[in-house]
Amino acid sequence: VGIVAETGGKVSNLRVGQPVISLDRVGHWCDAYVSDAQSLIPLPDDIPLEQAAMLSVNPPTAWRMLEGFVDLKPGDWVIQNAANSGVGRAVIQIARLRGIKTVNIVRREDLIPELEAEGADIVITDEIPLSKQIRDLTGNADAPLGLNAVGGESAREIAKSLSDHGTLVTYGAMGLQPLQMSNSLLIFKDLCFRGFWVNAWYKHADTKDIHDMFNQLIPLITSGKLTVPVEKTYPLTDAKAALAHASQGGRKGKILFVMN
Amino acid sequence: VGIVAETGGKVSNLRVGQPVISLDRVGHWCDAYVSDAQSLIPLPDDIPLEQAAMLSVNPPTAWRMLEGFVDLKPGDWVIQNAANSGVGRAVIQIARLRGIKTVNIVRREDLIPELEAEGADIVITDEIPLSKQIRDLTGNADAPLGLNAVGGESAREIAKSLSDHGTLVTYGAMGLQPLQMSNSLLIFKDLCFRGFWVNAWYKHADTKDIHDMFNQLIPLITSGKLTVPVEKTYPLTDAKAALAHASQGGRKGKILFVMN
Repeated sequence: VGIVAETGGKVSNLRVGQPVISLDRVGHWCDAYVSDAQSLIPLPDDIPLEQAAMLSVNPPTAWRMLEGFVDLKPGDWVIQNAANSGVGRAVIQIARLRGIKTVNIVRREDLIPELEAEGADIVITDEIPLSKQIRDLTGNADAPLGLNAVGGESAREIAKSLSDHGTLVTYGAMGLQPLQMSNSLLIFKDLCFRGFWVNAWYKHADTKDIHDMFNQLIPLITSGKLTVPVEKTYPLTDAKAALAHASQGGRKGKILFVMN
Repeated sequence: VGIVAETGGKVSNLRVGQPVISLDRVGHWCDAYVSDAQSLIPLPDDIPLEQAAMLSVNPPTAWRMLEGFVDLKPGDWVIQNAANSGVGRAVIQIARLRGIKTVNIVRREDLIPELEAEGADIVITDEIPLSKQIRDLTGNADAPLGLNAVGGESAREIAKSLSDHGTLVTYGAMGLQPLQMSNSLLIFKDLCFRGFWVNAWYKHADTKDIHDMFNQLIPLITSGKLTVPVEKTYPLTDAKAALAHASQGGRKGKILFVMN
């Protein structure tokens, strides 16, 4: 998050003092820099700063994966692993607002109540065979979209649970296992496997599409309908402790630096 | 291939005595049956019957894979394995007619000259790493489409050779190895993995699209521009010998039954 210090003569969408997030790939670690006005997303003054700081990566990743691959209708199911990640939680909340149901796979049982509280319809731990659990719990309902940030067996079980012509979008590889897919699943169910990386999307997308997305995301953040939990904030002087904390398992939210 | 024995009152696109191929999933092993006229593709009288007998599977599979996934432009490369299969040879010939270049992967060196004679631009044997060979031979040219009938390492090497945003279509699994894909390839190159099965396509496609395709394929077959080699034909009474021959490796073409 930054604050506009000065605007050029032709800039009408930003005012001095306005909080913004930047889509530039430079300038995040300096006191001030010059940016194209189109690369800055104006924020309302009352947006929670911690949430705004996370606004350019996780919520857009979730938003684009729900928007950009499959024409989802209310009542459709989306199946995801790594459901307690920042992206996973954004998927749960955005899907819920759109009437889309989610099956959420996590590694630890103690995450189930908190994800349910955020709006998850079904939360299960990743005991194989996942696909049988998913089939039983959803009553074999239509699941045209799967989201995968793990790889390996977990990804394969999601693919098995998708409906015919379903799409599996991979956006991470936390399990470090390659994606392994039965050829027959791909051929006879006419599945589609895609990858997604939000930075590549920012690079290729129309400026209008990017601004449209933020125009829809920002009110959700400001109203608290979409929120990513923060475990703890640190000043930069405690960077070492912050990094140690961030690399711990079992966290309930993000570790953030406070820059004041 | 069948011959029209009788037509109903409203049928204008077929005449008695006309050779046809049938898209019905029944009736291939009987002397006569009743079909919807739209499910029969009329053939010219001078079409080679052996080629017509193979017209409904391999050439349409090749045609649809070249048409249905990526907008190929003349000069683009397509990379395929199992290049000496019936589908593989049809891909080579159709691609060549459209000005599309092919990299063809085969298991045996002795297949190289015959595939080159059919119009293959590059033929290589599947020694790993394939992707380095492909890169060197094509001069790193744009390859937006890969066709995979093998799986495993072969499929992965094709995927590695595709350009950004490339598509890998899997239509077979001769290697019996699951498709294994690095997650990073999928995410950072924005690849897309799809499956294709021509029978499913027939089931879902518009009748108009099916007839349009055959209207383009049939002249290619009749003129000999598109041909699948036949190794040997057998009468039905020699079924045992025919099956034994068909299951041999090292064949140069299809084994067909002659039904007279």
